[in-house]
Amino acid sequence: MDWEIIGYAAAALTMFGFIPQLVKMLRTKSVDDVSLVMMVQMGLGVFLWMIYGLHLKNSPLIVANVVSLTTLVLGLFVYFRYTTRRYFR
Amino acid sequence: MDWEIIGYAAAALTMFGFIPQLVKMLRTKSVDDVSLVMMVQMGLGVFLWMIYGLHLKNSPLIVANVVSLTTLVLGLFVYFRYTTRRYFR
Repeated sequence: MDWEIIGYAAAALTMFGFIPQLVKMLRTKSVDDVSLVMMVQMGLGVFLWMIYGLHLKNSPLIVANVVSLTTLVLGLFVYFRYTTRRYFR
Repeated sequence: MDWEIIGYAAAALTMFGFIPQLVKMLRTKSVDDVSLVMMVQMGLGVFLWMIYGLHLKNSPLIVANVVSLTTLVLGLFVYFRYTTRRYFR
């Protein structure tokens, strides 16, 4: 068994993991059950992973976390576009 | 600057990243905006990371992904408990 395939499959699933949530928010225009704290915490986390990857000059770490960070930042824009929670406006 | 601190902070933020979403679902009992595909995809992804960690005998990889997997599996239970989408029942 080629174990590297397991690693690449794991990386692909998690780096694109937020995309289904992003698509759902765009499609339904309904976002109030989505946790803003989750998006901010994950965004900060993958930002730090990216910084750590830049320090280590590790390309997979950089690429994977730039992708995740992009989807999460887009998620924040979509969230604030459609949320009905007044106290964020 | 101690770069390891950046790595540990990144790991802590992402491994516990789904917990705010889990807490929100439990508190509001409202889950229909949360993407089921996102939870299943992330769950499968961190499961494969855990398997890959077991293969590499890499403790941080195992521990971080067991934590994430646990929160995501709990999230699935909470989702099916509270969803009003009939076609999942």
